[in-house]
Amino acid sequence: MTQAGLELGEHALISRIRARLPTLPPWVLIGPGDDAAVLEPARNALDVLSVDSLVEGVHFDRALAPFSAVGFRALAVNLSDLAAMGAEPRAALLALALPPGTRVDELDAFLDGWLELALRHRVALVGGNLTSTRGPMIATVTVTGSVGSRQVLRRAGARPGDEVYLSGDIGAAAVGLESLRTAGPAAPDDGLAECQARYLRPEPRVRLGLALARNRAASACMDLSDGLADAVHQVADASGVGLKIEAGQLPVHQAARAWFESRGADPVGASLASDDYELLFTCRPRHRGRLRTAIQRAGSVRITRVGVVTAERAVVLRHDGHEEPFPTGFAHFR
Amino acid sequence: MTQAGLELGEHALISRIRARLPTLPPWVLIGPGDDAAVLEPARNALDVLSVDSLVEGVHFDRALAPFSAVGFRALAVNLSDLAAMGAEPRAALLALALPPGTRVDELDAFLDGWLELALRHRVALVGGNLTSTRGPMIATVTVTGSVGSRQVLRRAGARPGDEVYLSGDIGAAAVGLESLRTAGPAAPDDGLAECQARYLRPEPRVRLGLALARNRAASACMDLSDGLADAVHQVADASGVGLKIEAGQLPVHQAARAWFESRGADPVGASLASDDYELLFTCRPRHRGRLRTAIQRAGSVRITRVGVVTAERAVVLRHDGHEEPFPTGFAHFR
Repeated sequence: MTQAGLELGEHALISRIRARLPTLPPWVLIGPGDDAAVLEPARNALDVLSVDSLVEGVHFDRALAPFSAVGFRALAVNLSDLAAMGAEPRAALLALALPPGTRVDELDAFLDGWLELALRHRVALVGGNLTSTRGPMIATVTVTGSVGSRQVLRRAGARPGDEVYLSGDIGAAAVGLESLRTAGPAAPDDGLAECQARYLRPEPRVRLGLALARNRAASACMDLSDGLADAVHQVADASGVGLKIEAGQLPVHQAARAWFESRGADPVGASLASDDYELLFTCRPRHRGRLRTAIQRAGSVRITRVGVVTAERAVVLRHDGHEEPFPTGFAHFR
Repeated sequence: MTQAGLELGEHALISRIRARLPTLPPWVLIGPGDDAAVLEPARNALDVLSVDSLVEGVHFDRALAPFSAVGFRALAVNLSDLAAMGAEPRAALLALALPPGTRVDELDAFLDGWLELALRHRVALVGGNLTSTRGPMIATVTVTGSVGSRQVLRRAGARPGDEVYLSGDIGAAAVGLESLRTAGPAAPDDGLAECQARYLRPEPRVRLGLALARNRAASACMDLSDGLADAVHQVADASGVGLKIEAGQLPVHQAARAWFESRGADPVGASLASDDYELLFTCRPRHRGRLRTAIQRAGSVRITRVGVVTAERAVVLRHDGHEEPFPTGFAHFR
């Protein structure tokens, strides 16, 4: 059975997926199997919606990432967008375009990874679409979540004098991918194994985003889906401010730092385009108490103060006392 | 500029799309440009969500369909799903995977077609995703809509004795595609031109779906996204009933009928897999008054009674007095 593939037909494959889904929550009135899903809206909350695609050959390579990691990551990058808005995840739709020769065991593995993360954050899979393609596999995921009307975390909202914070650390995802490419999977006791796990199964900062929103601790927020360099410019542009970031304060992942240094690269510079799915956010100095509460409620995530918001609209990286323009980020098609 | 392409970069292309969008409605609190869109839910209504992909080489061929038609169709097939639930469209997310060499004028044309339909049904484009791919173009669209809690049109709900109805006619989309393939675009005064338009720019039955829902006229409903043969089986399975369809009552499009007959094909049989995006629905005999009201409110759409719901769980096509099993539908990957 697991060697079987797409010739089973769309209906059989969809039935196979549906059979593995946990019981739907009561607010899902119609789940997969009708023309559309029907949900009861969350009470006194706003709807948050996002979509993101993983394209084989662009965002993942099946020689490096097992299908379970692709399924995990496809959901994770979307939950990260909800986290960046301060939203609680609710439901997801999964649209898969599958190339010829895709096997049922690959689809099963994709779902293994998906369900692992979906169960952790109670995200109901309420619908989707399966189609064939002659090209690379593409997984497009839509997520919905809810957020209180005065709790939305926007990119706009940073004001001069606000402090700039970063969750977790940076660089691990880039080193994870690069080391998978050049050296293959690392031994479990190697520090690189953690970097590779961070690339393959990024942990979206859902709890932190929720805690920042509910405590109204952040004045602006965004995730590092295209790396820190992209995020600092986006927040600055959206807020109409500048940011001054201290290179020495940036939390580069320890094993990533060692890896970069052993190759003669500057660990900070090399980490700026790493898609680590951390949160970059700003906080008014008088809201530090709210921030402390939020961090306590978010669990064990590390938060580092990395800079300050400025009225002058430049985005600046301070390195050993001298300042330089912050590098620009990664953009598709370039 | 129009000869330029993806080398402009993701941010520039997104800005270009955003510049063309009409003003967002007041219930869109955050539209494109943040990590996710934020919407105020519709009052006293349920959320309806659906996703569908158009894959180049599977669902469209750029030699036959101009990009404006692809944009129109990508939204239309999704609005048709909302119509089949009785939902009023609200917002959409557009995820595009674009192959190398895609030009900006092609993206513009896609958006022309999209906006034509979006404006007609007041669908706000609130977010999306642009990515490159090495394979064929894929447009994945997510739509949301709202429906009153007692007005949802499900596939399940048909009961023995209910009457079976079909909107519009069938066969035109199949003939439109086939004639484009074999003979190219038809002259405007040729009946085939209408079939080709129906394939390229299917008109989702949004007003009819809404009217059926609001008047509580239908006991079950589904769209013909995979053709009538698929739809009759889906409604029968979901409702746990059988359907008896009168071949002689099926409204085959006039030019399509002529085209099939000139090729020695049975017009009814050849129309059963045509993806015409009409609505198939059932109605209790005592709700005929509601149905009349709904049809009046839906405007100029033709409605034909084509059969009856049976307790015996077979799906049957009656042809000149004798009965045969209803053919099974089109399914992807087969």
